[in-house]
Amino acid sequence: MPKIDAAHFLRDLNELRQIGRYRTGVHRPTYSPEDMESRRWLMQRLAECGLEPSIDGIGNVHGRHRGPGPRLLVGSHIESQNQAGWLDGALGVVAGVALARAGLPVDVCAFADEEGHFEGGFLGSKSIIGELSEAEIDRSRSRNDGTPLRDALAAAGLAGKPRMQLEAGRHKGFFEMHIEQGTQLEKAGLRLGVVTGIVAIWQWRIEIVGQQDHAGGTTMAERRDAGLAAVRLLAAIDREFPKVCGERSTWTTGRITLEPGAPSIIPGSADVLFQFRDVGLPVLERMEAMLRSLVRESNRNERCTAKLTQVSRALPALCDPAMMAALDQAAERHAPGLWQRMPSGAGHDAQYIARRMPAAMLFVPSIGGISHHWAEDTKEEDLALGCQVLADAAEAFLRG
Amino acid sequence: MPKIDAAHFLRDLNELRQIGRYRTGVHRPTYSPEDMESRRWLMQRLAECGLEPSIDGIGNVHGRHRGPGPRLLVGSHIESQNQAGWLDGALGVVAGVALARAGLPVDVCAFADEEGHFEGGFLGSKSIIGELSEAEIDRSRSRNDGTPLRDALAAAGLAGKPRMQLEAGRHKGFFEMHIEQGTQLEKAGLRLGVVTGIVAIWQWRIEIVGQQDHAGGTTMAERRDAGLAAVRLLAAIDREFPKVCGERSTWTTGRITLEPGAPSIIPGSADVLFQFRDVGLPVLERMEAMLRSLVRESNRNERCTAKLTQVSRALPALCDPAMMAALDQAAERHAPGLWQRMPSGAGHDAQYIARRMPAAMLFVPSIGGISHHWAEDTKEEDLALGCQVLADAAEAFLRG
Repeated sequence: MPKIDAAHFLRDLNELRQIGRYRTGVHRPTYSPEDMESRRWLMQRLAECGLEPSIDGIGNVHGRHRGPGPRLLVGSHIESQNQAGWLDGALGVVAGVALARAGLPVDVCAFADEEGHFEGGFLGSKSIIGELSEAEIDRSRSRNDGTPLRDALAAAGLAGKPRMQLEAGRHKGFFEMHIEQGTQLEKAGLRLGVVTGIVAIWQWRIEIVGQQDHAGGTTMAERRDAGLAAVRLLAAIDREFPKVCGERSTWTTGRITLEPGAPSIIPGSADVLFQFRDVGLPVLERMEAMLRSLVRESNRNERCTAKLTQVSRALPALCDPAMMAALDQAAERHAPGLWQRMPSGAGHDAQYIARRMPAAMLFVPSIGGISHHWAEDTKEEDLALGCQVLADAAEAFLRG
Repeated sequence: MPKIDAAHFLRDLNELRQIGRYRTGVHRPTYSPEDMESRRWLMQRLAECGLEPSIDGIGNVHGRHRGPGPRLLVGSHIESQNQAGWLDGALGVVAGVALARAGLPVDVCAFADEEGHFEGGFLGSKSIIGELSEAEIDRSRSRNDGTPLRDALAAAGLAGKPRMQLEAGRHKGFFEMHIEQGTQLEKAGLRLGVVTGIVAIWQWRIEIVGQQDHAGGTTMAERRDAGLAAVRLLAAIDREFPKVCGERSTWTTGRITLEPGAPSIIPGSADVLFQFRDVGLPVLERMEAMLRSLVRESNRNERCTAKLTQVSRALPALCDPAMMAALDQAAERHAPGLWQRMPSGAGHDAQYIARRMPAAMLFVPSIGGISHHWAEDTKEEDLALGCQVLADAAEAFLRG
């Protein structure tokens, strides 16, 4: 059985936490100076443990195992949401480094922009499986400030670099360790989650156009209030989605922008970011049909015009049974009775890598379920336990 | 009868339009360099027509008539909403200049920040009637960028200047000419509106606090989604306000800010700017009671906490009967059958000045009802007609 050096693993994690530090978390948006510094830091760690480090034209960092196969691919992403937690993707990447330090035959990867700072999101994992076109790169812009992706890549020194592709047959499977980002484990008093499948996120933009007017001179009967049309549509979604959703479906309005956004002006336009998630394609399709129907209803009833655009449409991914079995057994050995199987409500790079090879994920608890916030945290003993279980499962799956 | 020089009046308006020009409108937020340039421009015009110009510590520009009384006060405001129209307050100020040019015994005033770029709003008209305390000035901040009012006054060169007060008994009344900011006149084919009363605006801030979380890891049942709580509260207002409002009441949500505002993060807080307006105090009080009740209901039903803060609470103002009669007669003489009496749905400086002297307002049509937008416009012949009717009414009221 491989033995993880837990102290070294935690030291690596805490070293990485210093890059772009924000309160107890980090601020490392994709391609920012802090993000690029963390990628260079990772390449040094990869070289240290004998892997051949490289960075490609989309910012993916790769550490290539020099010995013979069979091999595994292990990793996650290294950028963070804005002012967010220190673990999130970083945990899966540093766990990969720990497995390599323990002598396991692994390639380690940090995929770029899983967090979707740029339109489309998952740029690195889409790119490495050959599903990110040059035209998509041309079109994509920062969701933070509108910077074109091409400009951000150039500023990060990545313009013109080739984009790495997965080598067919090189890896027996992909393991990704991650924090749960929820409270299921904590509430049940468990320490590990073996992921059964990863939800797909279908992200939408709803643009509503009305007529900007003075809030006093224009009677209620005359108004074309884009903000009110948005509120009524979102209230209808809140009322109708429970009728078509699945048991673990989620839906979220992340942003509502009313223009011009002043107290005495009737909003002339409203821009809404909306998404839903599920592990089942039929459920996703039912939610899409309901959303489209509610937007049609809005356009029938309101004096404003709502336009629905799908920003991203991933496929749900199921985890590999043999890899899950290996994780089950390792979890039961190290934490008897303190683990469960569970779906992942969050999207992860594994959902794209799963299109090219067997994939599996291991969750450790998030304290208070807090995620995408600087206060995100996990107990050190859970981090160390998860990494050891990942190593045992990796070795067993390679042997099997 | 005084004769307005319509060509000179329109030339003045168009000259002012060049200061802070934005497309066919203007961008002159209070105390911005463009706003201060427009105040200096006005002082030159006031001097030109024989008035004694001055600017006070809150930015009010005043042109004092040098001859004997009885006198009138005529004016409005000169700053604009962001990227807004060229007429709005500027029309009433330049109409005052036109009356002075025509030899009428008027003081002309441009009151600062009617548009409420700073918390509180109506700074100039509140200040000149002695209802703006130093403590309120200390507290107020820019709604655009949070700049403290004191800093903005200092940057505009106004720090330390005394604040002008209305001289008791100096004025027989206050006339304010303004664009309608609605479509009532246009739809009825009319050219003038004699205002019967000015609505009060009660402006509110609703702050909702929930828990920021990952949009996938947190189940629907666990969430404390501040954005969704805001949507449900605003939908309830939309449903319940018609049951308590008056015939011409309006209510408007101008801004909804969800923090952090990212697609995959459950909003941890929501900040809503909400207001309602009416000419009747009992109606305003019924709407307030309903709003407070809906916020209490929200706090009873939601896992988020909503806090309601009143940002401003003006009193409705009724116009002076003798001044309205003078406007009626002048309107009928110059545009027989093409005028009406009407309430003002928008707030105006006149509502504060009316606390110290008789006040009245005259409306000219807004093309398409567009207001607080750079496309705002009024036909030149309506502008000229309105100014002549104002002059006739002013003279008749002074005589009467």
